[in-house]
Amino acid sequence: MTLRGRTLVASGFHAPERGGVEEFRDAVIEIGADGTIAAVRHPGSDGYSVSNDALHLPEGQILLPGFVDLHVHAPQYPQLGSALDVPLEDWLHRHTFPLEARYADLGFAERVYRLLVADLLACGTTTALYFATVHVEATKLLADLCLKAGQRALIGKVAMDHPETCPDYYRDGSAAEAVAGTRAVIDHIRGLPGNDGLVQPVVTPRFIPACSDAALRGLGALAQETGCRVQSHVSESDWEHSHVQARHGCSDAQSLHHFGLMTPGSVFAHGNFLSPPDMELLRSNRSGVAHCPLSNAYFAGAAFPLRAALDRGLRVGLGSDISGGPAGTIWETARMAVAAARMLESGVDPDLPPAQRSAHPGARIDMATAFHLATAGGAAALELPVGSFRPGLQFDAMLIDPTAPQGTLRLWPGQSGALLLERILYGTSRANIARVWVSGRQVA
Amino acid sequence: MTLRGRTLVASGFHAPERGGVEEFRDAVIEIGADGTIAAVRHPGSDGYSVSNDALHLPEGQILLPGFVDLHVHAPQYPQLGSALDVPLEDWLHRHTFPLEARYADLGFAERVYRLLVADLLACGTTTALYFATVHVEATKLLADLCLKAGQRALIGKVAMDHPETCPDYYRDGSAAEAVAGTRAVIDHIRGLPGNDGLVQPVVTPRFIPACSDAALRGLGALAQETGCRVQSHVSESDWEHSHVQARHGCSDAQSLHHFGLMTPGSVFAHGNFLSPPDMELLRSNRSGVAHCPLSNAYFAGAAFPLRAALDRGLRVGLGSDISGGPAGTIWETARMAVAAARMLESGVDPDLPPAQRSAHPGARIDMATAFHLATAGGAAALELPVGSFRPGLQFDAMLIDPTAPQGTLRLWPGQSGALLLERILYGTSRANIARVWVSGRQVA
Ligand SMILES: [Zn+2]
Ligand SMILES: [Zn+2]
Repeated sequence: MTLRGRTLVASGFHAPERGGVEEFRDAVIEIGADGTIAAVRHPGSDGYSVSNDALHLPEGQILLPGFVDLHVHAPQYPQLGSALDVPLEDWLHRHTFPLEARYADLGFAERVYRLLVADLLACGTTTALYFATVHVEATKLLADLCLKAGQRALIGKVAMDHPETCPDYYRDGSAAEAVAGTRAVIDHIRGLPGNDGLVQPVVTPRFIPACSDAALRGLGALAQETGCRVQSHVSESDWEHSHVQARHGCSDAQSLHHFGLMTPGSVFAHGNFLSPPDMELLRSNRSGVAHCPLSNAYFAGAAFPLRAALDRGLRVGLGSDISGGPAGTIWETARMAVAAARMLESGVDPDLPPAQRSAHPGARIDMATAFHLATAGGAAALELPVGSFRPGLQFDAMLIDPTAPQGTLRLWPGQSGALLLERILYGTSRANIARVWVSGRQVA
Repeated sequence: MTLRGRTLVASGFHAPERGGVEEFRDAVIEIGADGTIAAVRHPGSDGYSVSNDALHLPEGQILLPGFVDLHVHAPQYPQLGSALDVPLEDWLHRHTFPLEARYADLGFAERVYRLLVADLLACGTTTALYFATVHVEATKLLADLCLKAGQRALIGKVAMDHPETCPDYYRDGSAAEAVAGTRAVIDHIRGLPGNDGLVQPVVTPRFIPACSDAALRGLGALAQETGCRVQSHVSESDWEHSHVQARHGCSDAQSLHHFGLMTPGSVFAHGNFLSPPDMELLRSNRSGVAHCPLSNAYFAGAAFPLRAALDRGLRVGLGSDISGGPAGTIWETARMAVAAARMLESGVDPDLPPAQRSAHPGARIDMATAFHLATAGGAAALELPVGSFRPGLQFDAMLIDPTAPQGTLRLWPGQSGALLLERILYGTSRANIARVWVSGRQVA
């Protein structure tokens, strides 16, 4: 059922600011005809009243903002949860590039993409920042499917033309081809009938090692010309980090900036080895980081210094990194973000005395922070008007049913507030997600 | 439906030995009237034939051994996924002891324990090693409920009498009371009508800091006298570790051994700070470790050196550590076991050069090893005849439905073998678990 033009009475949580989870009960949420939240009123506040035609969400069900997933490789969905035992370089060449090459087949692309988008929506991912493949047509198709399914999606054709790092069977034929293909996808998405901005194009150099300087230069110019966001990877692994140092004599972040690729609302994945000046460069350019803790455990070789990055004012959201991470949703990602930050804080080596085990005291984050990053934090990184229930934002939300028979939540009398939210965030699985809306439209 | 006395045609996986996952297709499994696997025959082998009355499991559904959870604090289920932000000592006194004290109320105990056992069974945990509370009556009740629900369960009344570490409102009144209460539960469980060994008592000193020497001595003698297994915690945190050093002048493991508490089939949780001689002591006494990686991230302050422990021949299985870990099943535990081992191998500090980031090269385990630990490994630690589909073992199993509408698995044509198993282990959630059996009886 659409909620556009309706008034809702709902209870739940959101976290518009880092460190500030807000619980609301019987809030009256007015949703405009275009899916924008027109007003939110709380019991006891001025103007609070419940009209007769207000829609009451079922008692005991809990409204949360939809999740923003800042890093999804859509074509890698079929290998989610497998092939995690090899280093990043092998993983790309043995598993990932051969799989991505198959998206030349639009039938295959349609089968995978349709299921992926439906599954992400059903799990509460209302916004996704997608890497597609090198193929123009399959990337257009992903955009078409997202628009049809009603998912807020930012989508890029992957640009990768470097003959030394990309295989012959799977790369752009030239820098010019990488740029032209990217432009073709931008034009397609912007021209999609009925697309009022729900689906947006993103300039997507895979990562610096996969692109020639000419491609990077051309893509940077295209991003500036079109005003598109950029997505890529940054300082994920020791290998990537040192590749860029050797090739460009600067850090990964500096190189992205040099090529004009660090634009407002752009998002770069991982960032485990970002230096403080790199973080400042991102911050001052209004670019953010997709923190992918599940993937980091397998491919990064170190934890992301999340707390330090947040304290420096870096924009950070969460990314599942399908399929570098083995789980497909922000639920597992948020849980691992908390666990990984704890492990960075304590250190992991039991053979060292506690005082020498870690040089990162205070690195922990709590689940409330992870919830903020999963919602408003990711939205802020993308500069999208979503992520909480504030007036003026789009109504992107999910409804949690703690009593779903096949669900995994058990709530107990008297549990409320921060404790309740924490238990929901740790315990929810797909079966507990009763309904999902994007821009006021029901999508799951 | 009971499978006792039936012949089954099934496809699936098991891992009887570490490093040896076996896939089977259309295996004929004969189950005896007592739930024992009488024979397993594979297509092409001698004597393979499918009788007319054989029960064919649904095409495409996958049979796995049930999971063995080696560490569950049953009374802590209501706080699962919360209260994870404080050190172990605070966590016990501020959250856990007050909650556990409530099980003096048998009505509360029944509500929680009934749901816990049902939820664990529905998620495929066919065997659980339970800490109950200090209360004799509520512990007996947990045993009654497990027997009724058909879960294979090993259950201990928690013994904790130390007036300096346990609160006045929640402890055994004396060492003698701790031992007498433990004996009362042993007698109750062994005398339960219809209990053919499905539910077994366990001597359960909470951990050395919580017990007086007199209690430890009495419990050790009781374990020797009755032949009961023992469960406790061992070398979990720096705090626990140094407490025992200061008090007994030896390691936690040595102290447990000294008091006669390290008996065959006994299991000790965590073990993050076990030294090689400690591991050898456990190994040579046929005792094992419950590896609880989810909990370790929050409370241990270091990773468990899992690979090293396995290479030393230590018996290791997996424990959810409800509620020290935030997730209630072995699914999440197995996933975290792999991730934590990777993080120990690589180290976590991005500020260190790779060569200095870790002193644990080769510490990783793969998902196949985690699967072994979750099934046959846990069974071996307990010396229970379950954990795989070998003749002579009890038929404890679960059936995975990859196509369940609210499930989280997506399988693709052509995925089979190790890759298929890995994807199942990473992707399954409760809704994908179609049926569960313990000793041939359907329990979910
Ligand atoms: Zn990526
Ligand atoms: Zn424990």
